[in-house]
Amino acid sequence: MTDSNSQTMNITIVGAGGMGSRFGLMLHQAGNSVSLVDGWQANVDAIRTAGLVARYNGREVVDRLPIYSPQEAGQLRPQVIILFVKSQQLDAMLEAIRPLIGPDTYLLCLLNGLGHEDIIKKYAAEDHIILGVTMWTAGMTAPGHVTLFGDGNVELQNLRPGEAAETFTKRLVTVLDEAGLNAVYSENVKYSIWRKACVNGTMNCLCSLLECNIGQYGRTSAAAEVIRRIVCEFAAVAACEQVQLDVDEVVAHITATFTADIADHYPSMYQDLVVNHRPTEIDFIDGAVWRKGQRYGVPTPYCALLTQLIHGKEELGRIRQEDSAIPLPLSRTDD
Amino acid sequence: MTDSNSQTMNITIVGAGGMGSRFGLMLHQAGNSVSLVDGWQANVDAIRTAGLVARYNGREVVDRLPIYSPQEAGQLRPQVIILFVKSQQLDAMLEAIRPLIGPDTYLLCLLNGLGHEDIIKKYAAEDHIILGVTMWTAGMTAPGHVTLFGDGNVELQNLRPGEAAETFTKRLVTVLDEAGLNAVYSENVKYSIWRKACVNGTMNCLCSLLECNIGQYGRTSAAAEVIRRIVCEFAAVAACEQVQLDVDEVVAHITATFTADIADHYPSMYQDLVVNHRPTEIDFIDGAVWRKGQRYGVPTPYCALLTQLIHGKEELGRIRQEDSAIPLPLSRTDD
Repeated sequence: MTDSNSQTMNITIVGAGGMGSRFGLMLHQAGNSVSLVDGWQANVDAIRTAGLVARYNGREVVDRLPIYSPQEAGQLRPQVIILFVKSQQLDAMLEAIRPLIGPDTYLLCLLNGLGHEDIIKKYAAEDHIILGVTMWTAGMTAPGHVTLFGDGNVELQNLRPGEAAETFTKRLVTVLDEAGLNAVYSENVKYSIWRKACVNGTMNCLCSLLECNIGQYGRTSAAAEVIRRIVCEFAAVAACEQVQLDVDEVVAHITATFTADIADHYPSMYQDLVVNHRPTEIDFIDGAVWRKGQRYGVPTPYCALLTQLIHGKEELGRIRQEDSAIPLPLSRTDD
Repeated sequence: MTDSNSQTMNITIVGAGGMGSRFGLMLHQAGNSVSLVDGWQANVDAIRTAGLVARYNGREVVDRLPIYSPQEAGQLRPQVIILFVKSQQLDAMLEAIRPLIGPDTYLLCLLNGLGHEDIIKKYAAEDHIILGVTMWTAGMTAPGHVTLFGDGNVELQNLRPGEAAETFTKRLVTVLDEAGLNAVYSENVKYSIWRKACVNGTMNCLCSLLECNIGQYGRTSAAAEVIRRIVCEFAAVAACEQVQLDVDEVVAHITATFTADIADHYPSMYQDLVVNHRPTEIDFIDGAVWRKGQRYGVPTPYCALLTQLIHGKEELGRIRQEDSAIPLPLSRTDD
């Protein structure tokens, strides 16, 4: 199992939440040399002590994967780093793991959202950046404990075309695929990234703002109309980046989730904001479209207001805590 | 105290909540003949039984005002009907009190929001409609119980200019003013109505969506920016109705409330939606600007999305109740 064996690789997974743990587990079980890096010390301690504990398609599996905090990881020299941190942690984490990134190191970004390449470019050359999108899901129930079920796939594409980069990435596709991750090299990952961003850019913020699950939002009368407005803004900005989204198809794809198995689910942004009172990835979804729209001269008022409302909700969690020391009577005002 | 006495009038107040009760009390104490009409039977019964009980500038006052349900009110023949129902109740209430509206009856509309004249025109001639705006406030704590404090004023103007109508309205101004309501005849009530609608069209929906009070919203980083975007949409539509709002002045007026006495207050829409789970007046504020904007070809995306979100929140109250019989586990989804 050396890194000259084209069937396996030396891989570091950065961000050992549900998704990072899934990929780490499956790649390790397929014979790759895998290390985890995570910023949450409780998670590092749990996995170091008891191994990664996974409820994996109904079976309990324990995998004693090596895991490091960012400060401990400096001696790792992976062929590829797979990024699975939250978008808002990406910059700081890449800064912390600079020692791992050499001139030959590839970085694979599988984060939801848009614009991550602008951050990664600060740490690696463009021809060593691989963009991807995945439909796999995963749940984390406690430090070192994940729940993995269902199916998924992964699409990869080099950020910048080039023979050496594509050769490596096609090897990586084989490695992922042989680990059961259903990987393909795509000629249009940017399209898939934008399409998935539309899903996140609609349901994540709407369910978080209105504190409901996907199916419940779908039962409100304006749901399809609001979703179409948001997707149209995404499409207008995507077109400026040479991605031609099929608005009707994307809207139909999103509205289909209202009555699918996923209808009972609360999106990850809801978990972050409403359940855990943590900052969201909004600046990498609707916020990114808003920023890009300003750059390209494309108006994106729905993305703008949704971003402003989500940030407002984030801030109000703290503001209400500050005020809760002073009980305020609920007064009726006819204004 | 007959209706030929120019100092007093025969008045029916329709909508005996906080504001209707305040006007009824003050006009009655000044010697006018005042009746109340209300659609809430518990309120009618309470006032009929024990009188209107008002905590009035700190003193307790009881006024045995005559009060009727709409069905009982048919024999009333007021010179003027002062409308204080919720906007969404206006149409149905006017239908119910048709017998009160004769060719000589004036209708004074003091409702918050926009577009009420389009409804009232179905029941009375335009030269018998008086529009107004008031800065008085009032609270209702229970059926027949109101809390009245602070100061205010009233501005009136005929919907359509005309000598007879203006003569009547100027008499009405005197009657209101002599009751302590600080009334004036204004040459530009439409401006005041739009300006007040901007206040309601910002703080009401934002505080209701984010479930906070005025001061708390003001402490979020995007507050001034969001308010400016909304006010600009109101201004663009108002201009199509020959009302030139001073955007900077209106924005400054609204942001001043963040740190005023009113900062601790939760707007009436919050009370309706979040506390009492009742439909809001959104269709007469941001929704009205959206509708008018569509008519005039003026884009109003902030008003549109706020209206859609508030309606979504209204509907989700009912949807969650339907679902609450089926307990759903809160599942983490890394999507």
